[in-house]
Amino acid sequence: MTMICLYGSPLSGNAHKVRMALAFLGLAYEEETVDAERRQGDAFRALNPMAQIPVYAEGDFVLRDSQAILAYLAARHRPGDWDGHTAEERGAIAVWLSHAANEIFNGPALLRAEKLFGWTIDRSRARAVAMRILPVVDAHLAARTWLVGDRLTIADIAASPYLALAPDGGIDLDDWPHIRDWTRRIAALPGFPAMPGWPATNEWVREAAQ
Amino acid sequence: MTMICLYGSPLSGNAHKVRMALAFLGLAYEEETVDAERRQGDAFRALNPMAQIPVYAEGDFVLRDSQAILAYLAARHRPGDWDGHTAEERGAIAVWLSHAANEIFNGPALLRAEKLFGWTIDRSRARAVAMRILPVVDAHLAARTWLVGDRLTIADIAASPYLALAPDGGIDLDDWPHIRDWTRRIAALPGFPAMPGWPATNEWVREAAQ
Repeated sequence: MTMICLYGSPLSGNAHKVRMALAFLGLAYEEETVDAERRQGDAFRALNPMAQIPVYAEGDFVLRDSQAILAYLAARHRPGDWDGHTAEERGAIAVWLSHAANEIFNGPALLRAEKLFGWTIDRSRARAVAMRILPVVDAHLAARTWLVGDRLTIADIAASPYLALAPDGGIDLDDWPHIRDWTRRIAALPGFPAMPGWPATNEWVREAAQ
Repeated sequence: MTMICLYGSPLSGNAHKVRMALAFLGLAYEEETVDAERRQGDAFRALNPMAQIPVYAEGDFVLRDSQAILAYLAARHRPGDWDGHTAEERGAIAVWLSHAANEIFNGPALLRAEKLFGWTIDRSRARAVAMRILPVVDAHLAARTWLVGDRLTIADIAASPYLALAPDGGIDLDDWPHIRDWTRRIAALPGFPAMPGWPATNEWVREAAQ
């Protein structure tokens, strides 16, 4: 079996999307941390000209972009189940991949990156973007267990990390209870990999009992 | 046959992605222009809670987000050919859907929206985003006819409008000749729908002859 390597970083929510997918699939992989300086180097740019993590490598096959890596893993290992059985489902899942790439990244994820990594951001714009997407996701999840259909799909894997980690950027998830509960459901799935800032089931059950 | 309705706007590059796909597929549709004020109304928000165009409606099936609409149309009408025959191709196409949703929108498209529609944008950030994605696309197309594989896919349809229309935002495509030539190849495809600012084949041939 060809070795899988994930080029990532421990606190990257984008890398965590890939970790989650690989863990749920039960696939063994190595993770290599690529710091900010190395991302700008020629060797890493040969893997990803955008100079960003995550990058997924499986033998000669190299793929950048967290949503794209999820699309690949779904097509390879869970076709239909994870990426849509019908054209309608494929479209509905793609909506959340776009939101993950755009609004969820440019809102909650940037607010977190400013606080955790000292990124220079346009804070008022990031807050405005967050306030456009959060109510839409929360309302969507009010009567649903998963974003699309009645099962976990790559929509949930792509959209959840930077929403679960939004408190790192100063967003209180108690204001968005359907998002909060959905991130807890995901953290309760068998194999869910630990992520600092994303409480695992036992932690929030303990907290709720106090 | 169920009537297809595209809620759009004549100068929207995101709506043009859908127009292109429908035209290449030879599907009849109605287009309804939704102005900025109507986008904020309750009736339109029931179709798209993000209050954005385009929205695609086919009977009871309603879908927002230009990339998602392309994913739906591909799965429905050109499975494999337009959205990837293999897991590797599906991943490679998804890379460009992410770039279309994020960098191409938040760079070239915002610079254009400021000039054409008077949007308030962070111009230095939009320019920085444009300067991250333009060299990557140009280099990628240096030795390729299409973004993925040897045929048009939804990667090309998603990524091309706001790159072809980048001159509206002050970007000179002569600085990015491989992008320029690719947008011309796309405009030369049978059925390509006219778009102000995106010269059709006969226009740039005439221009080149002068």
